[in-house]
Amino acid sequence: MTNHFADKLTAAIKEKNSVVCVGLDPRIDQIPAHIVTKAKENYGMSFESAAEAIIEFNKAIIDAIADLVPVVKPQIAFYELFGEHGMRAFKETCKYAQDKGLLVLADIKRSDIGSTAKAYAQAYLGETEFFGTSESVMNIDAVTLNPFMGYDSVDPFMVECRKHGKGIFVLVKTSNASSGDFQDRKIDESGLSISDLAASFVESWAFDEVGESGYSFVGSVVGATYPRDLGRLRELMPSSYILVPGYGAQGGTAEDVKAAFDENGLGALINSSRGIIFAYETEGDAENYADAARQAVIAMNEDLNGVRQV
Amino acid sequence: MTNHFADKLTAAIKEKNSVVCVGLDPRIDQIPAHIVTKAKENYGMSFESAAEAIIEFNKAIIDAIADLVPVVKPQIAFYELFGEHGMRAFKETCKYAQDKGLLVLADIKRSDIGSTAKAYAQAYLGETEFFGTSESVMNIDAVTLNPFMGYDSVDPFMVECRKHGKGIFVLVKTSNASSGDFQDRKIDESGLSISDLAASFVESWAFDEVGESGYSFVGSVVGATYPRDLGRLRELMPSSYILVPGYGAQGGTAEDVKAAFDENGLGALINSSRGIIFAYETEGDAENYADAARQAVIAMNEDLNGVRQV
Repeated sequence: MTNHFADKLTAAIKEKNSVVCVGLDPRIDQIPAHIVTKAKENYGMSFESAAEAIIEFNKAIIDAIADLVPVVKPQIAFYELFGEHGMRAFKETCKYAQDKGLLVLADIKRSDIGSTAKAYAQAYLGETEFFGTSESVMNIDAVTLNPFMGYDSVDPFMVECRKHGKGIFVLVKTSNASSGDFQDRKIDESGLSISDLAASFVESWAFDEVGESGYSFVGSVVGATYPRDLGRLRELMPSSYILVPGYGAQGGTAEDVKAAFDENGLGALINSSRGIIFAYETEGDAENYADAARQAVIAMNEDLNGVRQV
Repeated sequence: MTNHFADKLTAAIKEKNSVVCVGLDPRIDQIPAHIVTKAKENYGMSFESAAEAIIEFNKAIIDAIADLVPVVKPQIAFYELFGEHGMRAFKETCKYAQDKGLLVLADIKRSDIGSTAKAYAQAYLGETEFFGTSESVMNIDAVTLNPFMGYDSVDPFMVECRKHGKGIFVLVKTSNASSGDFQDRKIDESGLSISDLAASFVESWAFDEVGESGYSFVGSVVGATYPRDLGRLRELMPSSYILVPGYGAQGGTAEDVKAAFDENGLGALINSSRGIIFAYETEGDAENYADAARQAVIAMNEDLNGVRQV
């Protein structure tokens, strides 16, 4: 196996026969009561306690789904919410998922320039250089990035991808209602939108970094909530894996995301967060939340494999 | 004094007679050797050790400049570089600066939507809700935001600003070489650029949130490296404080940033990071780095007050 992110991702998708990415967004008020009670008994009313509850919750979810999906995607905001304790929970979650054979795509949507972008890239994908040595902090497999600041905000991450076999997913068309404020604007009398421009940048960055799978370590993000854009953007970015948020809780269906796949049923990852990890809320059986998550993944795999041409 | 961010900022600028924002970007390889040696003796070769060195370095800088400037701006990437230990150093730095009477503007450039944006907003500006209670994590005065995802990525921060007297600074035109990739694109045959569009959004959000100072808690970011844009964008955003990076190390001069001020010499904050905190490198006197920073701030205040009409 090569140490190219897209090759590792493609191999994992084929092995698990799944294009599902499970979003690990541990909203603290939806974590089952028995976990919260135990954490409070051990650590009281503290951020440490919240961090412990998050770690326990995540580990059982990971155990329940690790054999079924290629990738998990922790949303770092829900960890930053608990300061340094949350960051520790984030790191432990990522490490645990990797130990269980999962790729970890951290949803950090960072954007900065020069040495600042390099600092983020080293923190999440590479190694922190300090005191004449270097050591990895998060050692995550891939991150999401916001491209508003342009090429020199993305390039420092590509350096780490090349060096360490990691990946990036650049925002192209996001799933939210206001995404059009900037992304749908037509530019330069060309008829192209800002999203189209982002897609052409992504393809230009991706093209030179293609692995044996035919895909690049430079991926993109296109929301399931704009299915018409998805097909057009798929064509504009033939070298790019597309991460598709917005399936399930946000309203996207298998039919909506169909256009994200290539003729081999590859080239896209479909994310669901709440719909998987809090699937237990439908039946109300909080004790068996991990099993409910497993059942939800099985159903999602079946739903999506039905529209992939495999 | 009202609990409106722009009023607190305006009062601080007048009291200190300074529009300088000192960037606390503690690049670990530029921290003086005597601090690093002590940290290594106490904590060995570890992220904890790096965090201790950062805290000691920052505290002496803060002590040396607190009476001279209204605001400090820690760049969170240089803290995330050390995982949870870095996040603790970040929190301690912010707290220490506030205790010394400084406003803290955290350069986080976050962007996300819905409940995720709310999580970031609570983490940095408001209070984290958990286990039926709420508690502030970072309790910072203001943050920078990336607007690429549109209004609903900014609104959750405005909610916390209103509630807690905090502020936001939205990227409009950034100081880096590639900022034009997206920001300079002309839209809709109108002759307006994406930066102009961002400015018009900022003004529309800012206008309804103006305090007694005439300025809003919704500010903007425009780089000193594009002086021609600065004047135009100042006019497009009369309600917005402009944070101007790019002075000094990045090449911007007092003449370049002049257009950012209103007729009272208010309405803008000029940031310098390396040029202040690592000013000692010019003379090489590492033991007296804090005094070198103080002298650099005095010179920068003088330089800028010379072009402000006060």
